[in-house]
Amino acid sequence: MSSQPYELSNETDRVTITGVAFGDGSRGDVVVSGGRFERVGGSAGGNSGEGWLCLPALVESHVHLDKTFLGAPWQPHLPGSAVAERIRLEKVAQQQLGLTVEERGSRLVEQELRHGTGFMRTHVDIDAEIGLGHFEAVAEIRRRYADRLDMQIVAFPQSGILSSPGTADLLDRALAQGADLIGGLDPAGIDKDPVEHLDIVFGLAAKHGKDIDIHLHEGGALGVFELNLICDRTEKLGLGGKVTVSHAYCLGQIGPEEVKQIGGRLAEAGVAILTAVPPTSMPPVAALHSLGVTVVAASDNIRDAWAPFGNGDVLNRAQMAAYQQTLDTDDGLAFAFDLVSRNAAKALRLDNYGLAAGNSADFVLVEAETLAAAVAAPPARRITFKRGRKVAELPVASN
Amino acid sequence: MSSQPYELSNETDRVTITGVAFGDGSRGDVVVSGGRFERVGGSAGGNSGEGWLCLPALVESHVHLDKTFLGAPWQPHLPGSAVAERIRLEKVAQQQLGLTVEERGSRLVEQELRHGTGFMRTHVDIDAEIGLGHFEAVAEIRRRYADRLDMQIVAFPQSGILSSPGTADLLDRALAQGADLIGGLDPAGIDKDPVEHLDIVFGLAAKHGKDIDIHLHEGGALGVFELNLICDRTEKLGLGGKVTVSHAYCLGQIGPEEVKQIGGRLAEAGVAILTAVPPTSMPPVAALHSLGVTVVAASDNIRDAWAPFGNGDVLNRAQMAAYQQTLDTDDGLAFAFDLVSRNAAKALRLDNYGLAAGNSADFVLVEAETLAAAVAAPPARRITFKRGRKVAELPVASN
Repeated sequence: MSSQPYELSNETDRVTITGVAFGDGSRGDVVVSGGRFERVGGSAGGNSGEGWLCLPALVESHVHLDKTFLGAPWQPHLPGSAVAERIRLEKVAQQQLGLTVEERGSRLVEQELRHGTGFMRTHVDIDAEIGLGHFEAVAEIRRRYADRLDMQIVAFPQSGILSSPGTADLLDRALAQGADLIGGLDPAGIDKDPVEHLDIVFGLAAKHGKDIDIHLHEGGALGVFELNLICDRTEKLGLGGKVTVSHAYCLGQIGPEEVKQIGGRLAEAGVAILTAVPPTSMPPVAALHSLGVTVVAASDNIRDAWAPFGNGDVLNRAQMAAYQQTLDTDDGLAFAFDLVSRNAAKALRLDNYGLAAGNSADFVLVEAETLAAAVAAPPARRITFKRGRKVAELPVASN
Repeated sequence: MSSQPYELSNETDRVTITGVAFGDGSRGDVVVSGGRFERVGGSAGGNSGEGWLCLPALVESHVHLDKTFLGAPWQPHLPGSAVAERIRLEKVAQQQLGLTVEERGSRLVEQELRHGTGFMRTHVDIDAEIGLGHFEAVAEIRRRYADRLDMQIVAFPQSGILSSPGTADLLDRALAQGADLIGGLDPAGIDKDPVEHLDIVFGLAAKHGKDIDIHLHEGGALGVFELNLICDRTEKLGLGGKVTVSHAYCLGQIGPEEVKQIGGRLAEAGVAILTAVPPTSMPPVAALHSLGVTVVAASDNIRDAWAPFGNGDVLNRAQMAAYQQTLDTDDGLAFAFDLVSRNAAKALRLDNYGLAAGNSADFVLVEAETLAAAVAAPPARRITFKRGRKVAELPVASN
């Protein structure tokens, strides 16, 4: 295989890669012009792309740019199981790093780019203490990387809304200042009032015409109760297709009959379910998909106070999902890829996503024979393109 | 960091790496002479190893060199849940590949070497149909890689012993011809006679003075019953420290009180437990360790008829174990590393394993700041040394 499989013509702004493999098993060319796909598939002869598989840009649908420790020396993980304790430890840890959110978050963006991420939804902590500081820093990262990555920012009440007075106003201001979505967090466990918490979240979404992405770790019957509250409000406000529930461990803790019931409700309301592939309580993604729910996988915490794991590779997250739920046939592995590509694009409401003429030329070449192979063992060699321009690659050149 | 952090002196057979990081957090030199560590730690000045962490060679304690499809075009995974059906599908698939066991197994050895594996225990299928063919092919691979990898071969009755007439004799011959261990497989589920199956396995071990490594997938009370049978025989024959049970899903399916009971028994009998970190029913490694059981993690199937996953990186398997059982503190991550290094070396009865003066200079440099960081997100850049000689590296140079 060639380490530079593409021909660039700077004069005409064209990129041509010949004879790459595609996820559907076909083989052909990728021709880009003016930042858009001119042709995907078909062959004009040539095999500069031999050994490479061309995939649509990966979608990192859930990450916390402001939380990562990347750029700082290794930080041992401090135990602290209760969420409130963890939030306190996180603030102490971040203050001791001596690095700005911009410095840390940019490192994570770089890692994501190298793995093929072209679209990202990041949550940013907003509470009375942090104010809009993290939001402004992440908005600055978004500006800096605007030509390499498309980013959505979620105004995320990490410390709760009711239990952190002043947060509702701050969320309101963040939405006015360019946050794309309003977040939420464990309405029962953190704010002790699921109805009031969700009313504030949905009220802010309606006021600003923004989408919603709620962290819901609460388990079993409580979690299902809250999913129903979320469906009620989504339907009432006509927000179908604009609401994501992240984690939803409860869906991994109930029986198949209950999954069928609440899954049907989520599909009907247009509420997407996102999982970070936890070791237990992972929602049954294939069953939910077959009920019509938009199911998505993403990284979540990457080397931060919540978890020492992660490397910014959502293809690895697809692999983890496939391994954990025995999605091991070629169809199963392709479905696992949908969790970080097509399905994620749907949840993020990305227009014109994917490898098709006319779409923005956002794609990644990975060293793999087939899509199934790329998911089963995510390749170490990748080249990422945004709007037809190479923006990153793996491995990083060593000196 | 330097991509060639070591100085070689061919005349004196010396290798010197200065100022690398070690797993205990210290920093110092590695000096090799005549294939052995002359000095590990301490500093004579210099920092050629900056950015690198020096780890003892990784131990791949459970793999199937004869099963992998590596080297062949991608093979879609065929569903077939019953073990007997899977065994039949496997034979069909392997015959259709048009590649020898030597060709396929060698590819897997190469992948393991690049990730830092210095020691390997591989099972090889033996039954009436295969005869000793796979065993002989893997023995040939062992000869070919003898200067790069130390390998133990398990004579493994993949089709059962009682249910595949003639297999007992073949196992006997394999042990006479150089197999290091006798294997076993689901004594109840496959051979329908746990006592007779285990008596044959232990009888062959006693006859040839060999160690034992038994595949035990059987769950719950049945699995625990068989673990007790294995402990009985281990004690009776004085084989403590020489017996491994691979998988032991039953230990991941019983309550903490039962774990305490059977764990104590396993520790007392000297029976090690090996896990390939399955998505469910993984034995609780930390609890077993605290009871005194030698616990080990390994890859098992790598891109074969049993599973499409895997890349030959046991450090990745340590990461999976840490993720799955929330071993997320620095101590937890170091323990997860023990599963593929120190503990594995104990189960494999490797002499003089580890980074210490006088030991064989088997080690791997990985691009990481600390041991915890290397386990939490296994590094893509590695250099593997066997008996003081560089034998492989990651990433592979591209052309």
